[in-house]
Amino acid sequence: MKTGLFVGRFQPFHKGHLEAIKYALKHVDRLIIVIGSAQKSHELNNPFTAGERVEMIWRTLKTLNVLDKVLLIPVPDVENHNLWVPLVSSLVPKYSVVFSNDPLTLELFREAGIETKEVPLKKRSLYMATEVRRRISEGREWEDLVPREVADYLREIKGEERLRNLKSKK
Amino acid sequence: MKTGLFVGRFQPFHKGHLEAIKYALKHVDRLIIVIGSAQKSHELNNPFTAGERVEMIWRTLKTLNVLDKVLLIPVPDVENHNLWVPLVSSLVPKYSVVFSNDPLTLELFREAGIETKEVPLKKRSLYMATEVRRRISEGREWEDLVPREVADYLREIKGEERLRNLKSKK
Amino acid sequence: MKTGLFVGRFQPFHKGHLEAIKYALKHVDRLIIVIGSAQKSHELNNPFTAGERVEMIWRTLKTLNVLDKVLLIPVPDVENHNLWVPLVSSLVPKYSVVFSNDPLTLELFREAGIETKEVPLKKRSLYMATEVRRRISEGREWEDLVPREVADYLREIKGEERLRNLKSKK
Amino acid sequence: MKTGLFVGRFQPFHKGHLEAIKYALKHVDRLIIVIGSAQKSHELNNPFTAGERVEMIWRTLKTLNVLDKVLLIPVPDVENHNLWVPLVSSLVPKYSVVFSNDPLTLELFREAGIETKEVPLKKRSLYMATEVRRRISEGREWEDLVPREVADYLREIKGEERLRNLKSKK
Amino acid sequence: MKTGLFVGRFQPFHKGHLEAIKYALKHVDRLIIVIGSAQKSHELNNPFTAGERVEMIWRTLKTLNVLDKVLLIPVPDVENHNLWVPLVSSLVPKYSVVFSNDPLTLELFREAGIETKEVPLKKRSLYMATEVRRRISEGREWEDLVPREVADYLREIKGEERLRNLKSKK
Amino acid sequence: MKTGLFVGRFQPFHKGHLEAIKYALKHVDRLIIVIGSAQKSHELNNPFTAGERVEMIWRTLKTLNVLDKVLLIPVPDVENHNLWVPLVSSLVPKYSVVFSNDPLTLELFREAGIETKEVPLKKRSLYMATEVRRRISEGREWEDLVPREVADYLREIKGEERLRNLKSKK
Repeated sequence: MKTGLFVGRFQPFHKGHLEAIKYALKHVDRLIIVIGSAQKSHELNNPFTAGERVEMIWRTLKTLNVLDKVLLIPVPDVENHNLWVPLVSSLVPKYSVVFSNDPLTLELFREAGIETKEVPLKKRSLYMATEVRRRISEGREWEDLVPREVADYLREIKGEERLRNLKSKK
Repeated sequence: MKTGLFVGRFQPFHKGHLEAIKYALKHVDRLIIVIGSAQKSHELNNPFTAGERVEMIWRTLKTLNVLDKVLLIPVPDVENHNLWVPLVSSLVPKYSVVFSNDPLTLELFREAGIETKEVPLKKRSLYMATEVRRRISEGREWEDLVPREVADYLREIKGEERLRNLKSKK
Repeated sequence: MKTGLFVGRFQPFHKGHLEAIKYALKHVDRLIIVIGSAQKSHELNNPFTAGERVEMIWRTLKTLNVLDKVLLIPVPDVENHNLWVPLVSSLVPKYSVVFSNDPLTLELFREAGIETKEVPLKKRSLYMATEVRRRISEGREWEDLVPREVADYLREIKGEERLRNLKSKK
Repeated sequence: MKTGLFVGRFQPFHKGHLEAIKYALKHVDRLIIVIGSAQKSHELNNPFTAGERVEMIWRTLKTLNVLDKVLLIPVPDVENHNLWVPLVSSLVPKYSVVFSNDPLTLELFREAGIETKEVPLKKRSLYMATEVRRRISEGREWEDLVPREVADYLREIKGEERLRNLKSKK
Repeated sequence: MKTGLFVGRFQPFHKGHLEAIKYALKHVDRLIIVIGSAQKSHELNNPFTAGERVEMIWRTLKTLNVLDKVLLIPVPDVENHNLWVPLVSSLVPKYSVVFSNDPLTLELFREAGIETKEVPLKKRSLYMATEVRRRISEGREWEDLVPREVADYLREIKGEERLRNLKSKK
Repeated sequence: MKTGLFVGRFQPFHKGHLEAIKYALKHVDRLIIVIGSAQKSHELNNPFTAGERVEMIWRTLKTLNVLDKVLLIPVPDVENHNLWVPLVSSLVPKYSVVFSNDPLTLELFREAGIETKEVPLKKRSLYMATEVRRRISEGREWEDLVPREVADYLREIKGEERLRNLKSKK
């Protein structure tokens, strides 16, 4: 059984992430989805808790019927970057390939001698999470950038309100 | 959908844990399994990494065909006990009931106003994890105390050897 | 006895803070003053230690004769914002209302289900601490923005000199 | 104005502590009471939160009418003992003498060149906190070892129940 | 024997640092070189690990034949600036003078009552480390700004490649 | 150039350690001496600061004339054992072999795929550090168990007095 790692912050989980997961699932039998910066929330760039991000992904993948092929593991940042790959490795089952688009993530796994694969993201989806957050806090349409389950969930937890409250912070 | 929490250290995952999970799954639609003391490993009382414990549970529950109803979330200890329930809650989806047998865990969730349920463990399984570790380090039979998938996995990662190497520490 | 919480960084304690405390003391029998970001000092935006900030407030409130109605409790930041309200609650006596003007503070207490009250600050006092620090580091008049006891104390500990030394940092 | 420091864990605050504070207040104009191990609670040897300990002391000193001469400051432990005295000093106003009976506390302040005074404790009060906890968890009389305000408060927060729940932990 | 402290981040070690060390060695019998921000690496402003920085300095000083007069001690940052001088002092032998050019470092040691000496840096070497990093990431000549041993070492560990990979990070 | 690692706590540095270093220096060109548990001091089992331990070793190796072949690097413990080898590796130059006698240290480096060598300690020197501490705190002869430079230094810093003061702690 081949196991892969997909690393992201998922603030929030959007359609680009979903495409990447579908892509990765074609290459591995099991995919560990690492919810990075797990300790962060209630910030303009990191509005949602790790638990809320787990829920977004879980609900979306449930409709995809792939929950028995994925693991969702929250991992906090660590100040010494040399310890991050070992921290991840201590929290998840063995894996043999890493999917990501973040240059630091790719560099750290590469230096650790682990195979990495850049996900073939469509340009416009590269900064989609930033775009979603901006649209929400400006009160514009954002729902079409995320899976329907995520849009529903964000309304359920009043995610828009939280982002706007935080934005009022100088 | 009713979501529950099952909290344990799983050092290692044994048949008592498996019974408890089956019991909990009768009461909730989805069960979040919190792998506690996630930062610990390579100690006599905590020999296995969180990732190894995740793997033990995943392989066992796969044969049970319930992977689409569970989440496996590693959570580290935190020195200030008042922060532990909030930490858990920030890392997992919303839940409405907690299954455990540990007095401190039960006390902390109770003081936080969350419903708790003591798992009806058979006496002999209460300290089964301790018993498994003792048998391994003394070179006695231990395999019948754990699910078959766990026994296979521990042999695969040379778990017995690690425990014995650590035991040689004065 | 009704207990309230007043949360601020007090870098330094100024007349706007003093007005807010007088306002809060009209609504509660006891006021816990939380000195936030207690771990910070010797930075341009956080020049004074928590202990120095405690002293500024203590000396001012002593002349007001309300020391038997207040508690001064330093609380450090915590990276996971979900743990901050529980951390505060573990360090202070029970309270039933929170006074603040900081959007994040208000959001966190509100999500925790605790009553919050925005302090009716006069506009010009909103960023008074920033203004005091700016004036000090530019060598302009600043004493009239803070209670007299604070002005005296800052001269006593050579606060102006520290701020200017730090400012020379590139 | 002479300021002193009185360091203790206050698990719980008992009559020996009260005598020590009265003694210290004869030697200084202001006494900073450091609530040590502030991060600990819900353990057999550290059952109460820092906030609960602050409340015990505050209520007792209120009846003594000395609240305008004391400060109650919670300070957590720090793993590197060399950083503890500097940590305390960063969280409290300047002080010139330290009252304590703990050998490590006395050694650390002495090596830092600060005047220390052993409190003339009556023998039997030396381990009074241990004795109170033992009596509570064994269901024996303990109220006469603590100030009346503390006894009332502990009943109010169901302190006895917490200690006994924790004791059931193996 | 007079011992001095030389504090820097050495990202990377350049000719200005080397001059400063030669200068300091004229004033003391033994020089402790503190590699600051030891926990940082793989960032644009802190590309190299503490171990890599130790190696750069060690190789350079070896050709100078002064390895028996220096100690190389990595020290991490600490969030509470009041604890940094005590942390350094707990990790190195006793010293009586500190060489540095960083305003915060100088301020902290001065407030601790320790003699400080600003190193007579030639202007152009003040921000030499920044200049080296900029030149590397822009693909320009940088080797003449650092000792030859450092240039060789950075090529050996593919330091240029790492900096450019990190730069691609948005 | 072959570089080795020698890992110990050195509480205090004794003749067994010195023999081990001489042994290791026969096998490598450069030896990095890792002062483990660097954050600990002022405890009965860890009485001396990392800086004091650095000084003990430095003075001893100076008389041996090998200071240009060794590096003395303090490394703190880390709660997650999986991060300790990566932490060490981020703080020291590249090494290819590890000398130690501690089972956990040996296990961790072995699992990381690094060559380890058990130091051929004479039996009686295995627990020599424990023995030195016991003798000091009991007021018995201990000087012949440590190099002369260490004995002199411990008297210089009043090490015996510190150990006895700490011992009075219950």
